[in-house]
Amino acid sequence: MTRTFEGVRDELRAFVAERDWDQFHAPKDLALSLAVEAGELLEIFQWRNPGAAALTPEDRQRLADELADVAMYAMLLADKAGLDLLAAIEAKMARNRERYPVEKARGRSEKSTKL
Amino acid sequence: MTRTFEGVRDELRAFVAERDWDQFHAPKDLALSLAVEAGELLEIFQWRNPGAAALTPEDRQRLADELADVAMYAMLLADKAGLDLLAAIEAKMARNRERYPVEKARGRSEKSTKL
Amino acid sequence: MTRTFEGVRDELRAFVAERDWDQFHAPKDLALSLAVEAGELLEIFQWRNPGAAALTPEDRQRLADELADVAMYAMLLADKAGLDLLAAIEAKMARNRERYPVEKARGRSEKSTKL
Amino acid sequence: MTRTFEGVRDELRAFVAERDWDQFHAPKDLALSLAVEAGELLEIFQWRNPGAAALTPEDRQRLADELADVAMYAMLLADKAGLDLLAAIEAKMARNRERYPVEKARGRSEKSTKL
Repeated sequence: MTRTFEGVRDELRAFVAERDWDQFHAPKDLALSLAVEAGELLEIFQWRNPGAAALTPEDRQRLADELADVAMYAMLLADKAGLDLLAAIEAKMARNRERYPVEKARGRSEKSTKL
Repeated sequence: MTRTFEGVRDELRAFVAERDWDQFHAPKDLALSLAVEAGELLEIFQWRNPGAAALTPEDRQRLADELADVAMYAMLLADKAGLDLLAAIEAKMARNRERYPVEKARGRSEKSTKL
Repeated sequence: MTRTFEGVRDELRAFVAERDWDQFHAPKDLALSLAVEAGELLEIFQWRNPGAAALTPEDRQRLADELADVAMYAMLLADKAGLDLLAAIEAKMARNRERYPVEKARGRSEKSTKL
Repeated sequence: MTRTFEGVRDELRAFVAERDWDQFHAPKDLALSLAVEAGELLEIFQWRNPGAAALTPEDRQRLADELADVAMYAMLLADKAGLDLLAAIEAKMARNRERYPVEKARGRSEKSTKL
């Protein structure tokens, strides 16, 4: 059986429900927790800038752990706010296609306001 | 046709490839960008703590936008490091089931080290 | 002898110089480190919202530690960029007095753009 | 007259008192606001890594603004928790001198646990 976004989200919902943790999950606290995990993700790159090929097995394990934490809080917060996270990503990409048209943005890292 | 995680990730890969942006996407820069977006997400809750039912349409739009940004950088960073993000979430949940067994963790928000 | 901002900053400069750490202190890395510490500061408030009077001795010790880390990176980054941090704070307050005039801002937490 | 840490902190206290903003300054909200500003600070370095000499006047202005915001929230949070921020920095440096003795740490960026 294939792993799907919905399947993982349902697992996560069950994990929370079994522990009766929904009571702690105010939107603000989920956003705060996501930011805490984003800080732990950043810490992997403190004082260093490894390219993808230079990531050690320990780096990749830490990345997997912290990215999973970030993604879980994103899923829980979207859920709490009644948002479809995959649809939100598609909507944002549609907007970004307008803000960053290929002919203007190709090979440039500036913000849309500076292109 | 159903929207899937893989489908959205492939769209994101194409969005980046068309703009030749992969050259900017060092793992460190993707992690930094994710943290910037996590800060913008937090800002929605500055000086306030709305419950899910009290989120305004403007709040929900901002949440959708910032969560999408966070999720996109998480997908790009996982991709860059050769990680399967959904599998990483499942692995983390498996670990969390051991660290937070239902009988100990039910209704409690303490860290596993304090349970 | 009184402890002063300049005295503490000079101690910090000596601490870094003795360890030959200036070579690691690119502005970006100092900003990243500050953000990592800001995440650790946030973690103190994960799932809880103690008022000042409810902070435990452990909370206050963690606050002292994380605020010190944040402040040290702010001092190092200001130093690196040739900025006078106390002067920058005064300049920002002068601007905030204009953006948030007392008669408009009194008792209100909205952003200046919404006042 | 010389600008001092205490002088700037007193100005900041007056700024807050005149606007009756203390009511919004729960420790958690101050920590959250500091993290929001840390994210804006990070954004200056998104997709780029300028050395100190390569910082543009615009970069330096943004740095001054964001560092000031970070430092103001650090001062307010320390104040709220009854902490002396300069003393906290000195205490942390004393601890760091033990964790990172010069002979072990010189020229190395690893965490104390890896030295």
